[in-house]
Amino acid sequence: MPLKFSVTNRDPSSAARCGVLDTPHGTLKTPAFMPVGTYGVVKGLRSEDLEELGAQIVLSNAYHLAERPGAAEIQALGGLHQFMGWDGPILTDSGGYQVFSLSDRCQVDDDGVTFQSTLDGSRFRLTPESVVEIQSQLGSDIAMVLDQCVPGSATRSIAEAAVRRTQDWAERSRTIATCLPGGLFGIVQGGVYSDLRVAHAEQLIGLDFDGYAVGGLAVGEKKNVTWALLGETAAILPEDKPRYVMGMGTPNDIIEGVARGVDLFDCVIPTRHARNGMAFTSEGRISIKNQKYAADEGPLDPACNCPTCRRYSRAYLRLLMIRGEMSAGIMLTWHNLFHYLDTMRSIRHAIASAGFVEFRRNIAAGRAKLAD
Amino acid sequence: MPLKFSVTNRDPSSAARCGVLDTPHGTLKTPAFMPVGTYGVVKGLRSEDLEELGAQIVLSNAYHLAERPGAAEIQALGGLHQFMGWDGPILTDSGGYQVFSLSDRCQVDDDGVTFQSTLDGSRFRLTPESVVEIQSQLGSDIAMVLDQCVPGSATRSIAEAAVRRTQDWAERSRTIATCLPGGLFGIVQGGVYSDLRVAHAEQLIGLDFDGYAVGGLAVGEKKNVTWALLGETAAILPEDKPRYVMGMGTPNDIIEGVARGVDLFDCVIPTRHARNGMAFTSEGRISIKNQKYAADEGPLDPACNCPTCRRYSRAYLRLLMIRGEMSAGIMLTWHNLFHYLDTMRSIRHAIASAGFVEFRRNIAAGRAKLAD
Repeated sequence: MPLKFSVTNRDPSSAARCGVLDTPHGTLKTPAFMPVGTYGVVKGLRSEDLEELGAQIVLSNAYHLAERPGAAEIQALGGLHQFMGWDGPILTDSGGYQVFSLSDRCQVDDDGVTFQSTLDGSRFRLTPESVVEIQSQLGSDIAMVLDQCVPGSATRSIAEAAVRRTQDWAERSRTIATCLPGGLFGIVQGGVYSDLRVAHAEQLIGLDFDGYAVGGLAVGEKKNVTWALLGETAAILPEDKPRYVMGMGTPNDIIEGVARGVDLFDCVIPTRHARNGMAFTSEGRISIKNQKYAADEGPLDPACNCPTCRRYSRAYLRLLMIRGEMSAGIMLTWHNLFHYLDTMRSIRHAIASAGFVEFRRNIAAGRAKLAD
Repeated sequence: MPLKFSVTNRDPSSAARCGVLDTPHGTLKTPAFMPVGTYGVVKGLRSEDLEELGAQIVLSNAYHLAERPGAAEIQALGGLHQFMGWDGPILTDSGGYQVFSLSDRCQVDDDGVTFQSTLDGSRFRLTPESVVEIQSQLGSDIAMVLDQCVPGSATRSIAEAAVRRTQDWAERSRTIATCLPGGLFGIVQGGVYSDLRVAHAEQLIGLDFDGYAVGGLAVGEKKNVTWALLGETAAILPEDKPRYVMGMGTPNDIIEGVARGVDLFDCVIPTRHARNGMAFTSEGRISIKNQKYAADEGPLDPACNCPTCRRYSRAYLRLLMIRGEMSAGIMLTWHNLFHYLDTMRSIRHAIASAGFVEFRRNIAAGRAKLAD
């Protein structure tokens, strides 16, 4: 078993739990947030920066790395860990999300997906088997099956067809998973139809994956629908396997996901928003470009202990951001990731000390006012 | 005396020397290279990164900071050191170079310079007095007088007029220098006319500045002209004051400047070229985007001990650079600045150990082949 997961603490009043996940490249404490390094790098940072920030695991993307430079090329260079200079755990997404996000550039059939490369227009084929093979070449600690993600607006029949296909692909993937150096996660689909999701989760459980992801959420459906679907789906996933909700979300979303029993999260929001001048703080979001910060001597977040908040004023960060200085995006990326990772530490501490209910309530009360 | 300079070692066969320069924000060993943070930030880095790189002093620009956010605004925020989060020495250029580089947007008269702002087109006036006042508000450790820099192609009469004006401005600046928290350097002009430069240097020396810069070099004239002018000018500058050649240059240029008795250097080349994918190495320059590095497992420079070379392959850096990932520019900026600062350490060591002649010869021989 390349992955070993054990639950260490449970919140008595919700499905929230703390756990420990052992991977071939080390152990992480859950709930955990995975900074997104789609192309083998977290934008604006270096791997040593991720270490200093205390990131436990990084997410990358098999589709994008296979497109360029190629999985075999990375394997020849010692694998993705060596390539990125990151010796900790790596989870790689499969390309299933790109079936949704690049839907105008791909065609799905029962055997796989054909993409038209955004780089040079060439055709680029992924199958369930090739995606496992790619992730084996990359050396991922956690590989994801190829799935078909549909938009939140998908009709029941479209969602059903995508589930059938995703399940068929999951079976094909499971068969060859032994080639992987790490674990393989199945992905629950089913659109906004909770009975489809529950049925799909049960089918996937039958294949005994190393963990289970809930995919196809936060793709256009309403927030209350997201929470209902996530709660119902997560509830039937095995207690003794890690659960991952893909592409989510804000700090508040993460707390709500944790409350529903989710262990792993990823999202581009902290890094992407940072480059646009948006900082997450203990008092809500702020847009540092705002004129009102022009003479503000205070840090982004008075309650934050990140390198950016320890050293730089809002006035300075604002000046750099409106000048388009890349250092501004870097400094805010440090802050936002620190804020996310610190939020995860707080969540783990709250669960372990039986204070999650209160933590969640306080955060919800504080954040609701601030339009997080 | 806010600045104190003492020569600690001399090369017997050239004008090269080692020294120690005390400033209100600490001491630096010369010859020294000043990373350029024109707008109060070195592009792609944070001040903690500069500390980790071992930068001794940073250069910024009074013109650009006065234009935005304003010198009074920075003073109100605690001064430039506080604003940048940099507690080491800062030298600020005056805006004289912008008389050259923004010549289509400015008008020079005997009293000062009127710029049309590149930000909003508004008029923006600098005089010798206002430039000293601005640098006083910023809290510069080393302030530069306002000068008039002319292109390498300037006729003798244009160069003469610029010298007259620069000398007049230098006198006006010197009169009010006591308002500065640090030292004030005069700037030698004179175009490509060495008798003008020598005469101007003598005039400036009469004003007893805390140090002397040679300006208006590497602005279009031929390299052998640059070296001849620099050698003749530096030779008559006082032995007991620091000498600074402005905006120079490649590592080879710096070695040649050191050989002519220069103590301080600055240049955007290492940082700007880094963002374009060009790395300085012990074996010459390389353009990391080159296809030949696509599968290259080696570091940028096998002889380099910088964080980038310790961790990342050429193949990885190439991929990030051709993808336009900002982390690539960051990683190369670290490398190039490390290379420059390491070159300065080597130069100081060579001078102190009576090995500068050999060092210079070896570098020249090695680099000549490699089109540095």
